[in-house]
Amino acid sequence: MGTIENKIISGVTFHPLKIIDTPGGDVMHCFKSCDQGFVSFGEAYFSKINKGFIKGWKRHLKMTLNLTVIAGAIKIVIFDDKKKSMGKDCFATYVLGPNYKYGRLTISPGLWVAFMGLEKQNILINISDIIHDPFESEKKEIDSINFKW
Amino acid sequence: MGTIENKIISGVTFHPLKIIDTPGGDVMHCFKSCDQGFVSFGEAYFSKINKGFIKGWKRHLKMTLNLTVIAGAIKIVIFDDKKKSMGKDCFATYVLGPNYKYGRLTISPGLWVAFMGLEKQNILINISDIIHDPFESEKKEIDSINFKW
Repeated sequence: MGTIENKIISGVTFHPLKIIDTPGGDVMHCFKSCDQGFVSFGEAYFSKINKGFIKGWKRHLKMTLNLTVIAGAIKIVIFDDKKKSMGKDCFATYVLGPNYKYGRLTISPGLWVAFMGLEKQNILINISDIIHDPFESEKKEIDSINFKW
Repeated sequence: MGTIENKIISGVTFHPLKIIDTPGGDVMHCFKSCDQGFVSFGEAYFSKINKGFIKGWKRHLKMTLNLTVIAGAIKIVIFDDKKKSMGKDCFATYVLGPNYKYGRLTISPGLWVAFMGLEKQNILINISDIIHDPFESEKKEIDSINFKW
């Protein structure tokens, strides 16, 4: 269950997590303070992504995201504009969820991120290293980055 | 949005949290490191409670639980066996969920806790102050404590 670095975009890692079949309902691991990559706890919050909707693009300048999709399925796309090609080598894509690929996606600051909901109910948690601060993030219209959803 | 102490059992508090109606899906607050009552981050994990099932009883000897029901609805019952009456004054009950009462329930170590799932899909998160350790918790059969579910 080691951490897997994304081969396309540096600063992105995926850490598979366990879902434990327990009488009365699953227990789903999320994040431990002893896990590789844990720096500090700033805030935990949930974001629902309605089916067919896209949230994004958003770029954090300081915050490291630790995302786990805990219900449904969410397509997460990461765009690195430091690469000047604007081609396929600028994008990393994950489809995450308990019934797809369950784990924690860690995204360093400086990368553009957008989310699409794929099922009826889609929920992700972000356990970030700093507290939410509206001044440390930037937004772009979804159409302003050319990605074929 | 202040913290509300439980009037029946000491060591139990409820902190209402915001659900923010956002285009594409709600954002649901959970826990910030600057929140009243935050001590340390040990671990975050999810527990599903299937409809009609009860998980419990369980008592932690060291861990403080910070529980938020983020999908469905869960009945959470807390039993304090330090009170010798074994009557109603030993139990505190909450029904929590995004469409019921949304917030964080903090439960100090030393109290017995059990959970019942009320809807189709019921998920809670625990953000505890220490990492899971099987030796710091005790279990009891659900029938061994007389509570009318």
